[in-house]
Amino acid sequence: MKAKVYVTLKPGVLDPQGKAIQHSVGLLGYDGVADVRQGKYFEIALDAGLDEARARETAERMARDVLSNPVIEDYRVEVE
Amino acid sequence: MKAKVYVTLKPGVLDPQGKAIQHSVGLLGYDGVADVRQGKYFEIALDAGLDEARARETAERMARDVLSNPVIEDYRVEVE
Repeated sequence: MKAKVYVTLKPGVLDPQGKAIQHSVGLLGYDGVADVRQGKYFEIALDAGLDEARARETAERMARDVLSNPVIEDYRVEVE
Repeated sequence: MKAKVYVTLKPGVLDPQGKAIQHSVGLLGYDGVADVRQGKYFEIALDAGLDEARARETAERMARDVLSNPVIEDYRVEVE
């Protein structure tokens, strides 16, 4: 099974890296870019022996405890 | 309009950060994690004045030219 984890900064948390990208693309001539926010993306391959519920639980736990900082970040998990 | 850009390492490109995460979660007692790969995720807010085709074209161009390294990375763009 494969899990995808998306980690994003919570709304309101300053994202200097996103702001730097936004500023740069403005200088490069891209129009209409109102905001850029950068997050992280993880693809987790799980052993085929795990059923979907177990795979989701493992991925959720990893996302919460290891891959994100719950003080400033949100996460989203997809299992397929 | 909002665009989401996912940047991942091409298959076959070594991902030491992903391997470090995989090793760490193994030590922490997570079972069944066969592989971890880390990518990047960007949320781009585009001016409401852009139509969907123009928004997609801007996001695709940003993804190709600015947000990814085409030698070692693939990207995927979603516009909503």
